[in-house]
Amino acid sequence: MEIINRISRMSAVSAKLLSSDVQLGLVTTMGVIHPGHISLIETARKMTDLVVVSIFVDRLQFRSDEEYLSYPRDITRDVDLLRQENVDYIFTPAGEEMFPPGFSTYVRVEQFAERLLNVEVPALFRGMTTTILKMIHIVRPSFLFLGLKDALQGAILRKMIRDLNLGTEVVVTPVARHPSGLAYGAHNCFLSETDLTAASVIYRSLTAAEKAIAGGERQARKVLQEIVRVLGTEPRAKVEYSFVADPESLEPASRLQGKVLIGVGARFESTMLNDSLLVEIPTE
Amino acid sequence: MEIINRISRMSAVSAKLLSSDVQLGLVTTMGVIHPGHISLIETARKMTDLVVVSIFVDRLQFRSDEEYLSYPRDITRDVDLLRQENVDYIFTPAGEEMFPPGFSTYVRVEQFAERLLNVEVPALFRGMTTTILKMIHIVRPSFLFLGLKDALQGAILRKMIRDLNLGTEVVVTPVARHPSGLAYGAHNCFLSETDLTAASVIYRSLTAAEKAIAGGERQARKVLQEIVRVLGTEPRAKVEYSFVADPESLEPASRLQGKVLIGVGARFESTMLNDSLLVEIPTE
Repeated sequence: MEIINRISRMSAVSAKLLSSDVQLGLVTTMGVIHPGHISLIETARKMTDLVVVSIFVDRLQFRSDEEYLSYPRDITRDVDLLRQENVDYIFTPAGEEMFPPGFSTYVRVEQFAERLLNVEVPALFRGMTTTILKMIHIVRPSFLFLGLKDALQGAILRKMIRDLNLGTEVVVTPVARHPSGLAYGAHNCFLSETDLTAASVIYRSLTAAEKAIAGGERQARKVLQEIVRVLGTEPRAKVEYSFVADPESLEPASRLQGKVLIGVGARFESTMLNDSLLVEIPTE
Repeated sequence: MEIINRISRMSAVSAKLLSSDVQLGLVTTMGVIHPGHISLIETARKMTDLVVVSIFVDRLQFRSDEEYLSYPRDITRDVDLLRQENVDYIFTPAGEEMFPPGFSTYVRVEQFAERLLNVEVPALFRGMTTTILKMIHIVRPSFLFLGLKDALQGAILRKMIRDLNLGTEVVVTPVARHPSGLAYGAHNCFLSETDLTAASVIYRSLTAAEKAIAGGERQARKVLQEIVRVLGTEPRAKVEYSFVADPESLEPASRLQGKVLIGVGARFESTMLNDSLLVEIPTE
């Protein structure tokens, strides 16, 4: 395993591998390696020749310096965990090298998912798309592995990759979950003991939606009502969004058919948690 | 020589060449092949293993449908000319494939060249940067060849490539000129006989600036005055911009030193013409 800090070194490695026909898989992380990442890495191991895990805490994806600086960082622990998974390269560039003074080129996926979310995420997504585009240019992976948990991010990145004709394919893997049902995620470490338990309501709301659909419900409105009802049973959860949408276009569904993406975002104190479920509606 | 229409075919060709360590050179054009393009292709021939010339009339780079539709197109003539130059691939995708319905991902170089131009170019540059980024992803060239004539575009693309860590290097070649001094360009075909002659004033204004610098002038303000004076001798020229700037950052210069980019844009009737000169100031 090689730990790479410099962009130029990572570019040189990926260029060399590309010209020797080696397929790279990329798992992007902001560190705080958890079982969700491990599950992505295991999938990457099976599908590609070599696995690169990036660790980069991306200032652009935080609302404030305070949030950014309080984000947990423990590179020693992360490296140990990744070594156990036989990761080939850890790419952990410095913020100043990724975004040097004068940096000013941004990529935006416009008019997408806007109908789903009327929260102020677009600016954060601009950071996410720009950073991932840079990562793809540097690492040149054949496959980018993303968890279904952040289904919105996944759909936006797939749209970016398609619109810009990037040669990278996005592989979305199922959500890795705590026995309580809570999706593993870097933000979980911010939760109090009480909230860790309470947050399992998110997955319960998703499975309630799934159950309603299995029971024959085909109206998105009714499915959303069921999600909100279940989330309402947990007073500690502040619902930020919930949607039932086409997994590719993110267009809100009204009558359910084909594949449907169900997503929920809820806040516990100041910690935002996301979760998603992909449901295949049986043809009638 | 192969003429490629489909993006998927071009991607497949470039992926294969990349894995066999072949270096590709890309010359992007909107057709109307002229001696300026030929000079770029000759440079590309010398520096790379295979040369791809793209022909794509890019709707995003026009102000109106009318302008876009009236742009000259003669693929048969262009193909003949490119065949004589032993170009390896002509890549000429359809507009509907490059920008299918629902396309909405754009790349912008923000806060750059804004101090130079207070015209409404940023939106056009957004089109230019997005299209070239897509071309780079599809063709994956080692080198992108640009003429110095469109020095602003060149500087913006270099900034984009640097900011986004693309592996492509921009090679800027000297301006190919008509014996009158007029830079060859696709827009020249819109000029009347009278304007074709009158337009040589652009180059005369640039050489006057060069001469002033050679004579010891080091104040950008004075050099700009000289440019405007010479352009003023031709009543048919409507000056759109002129600048003296750092060739990399496009920051306006005040006292001249090192390498200096001098640029002029002028309109003859409705036809916009650009020209540039790179001047090396001798160290004193």
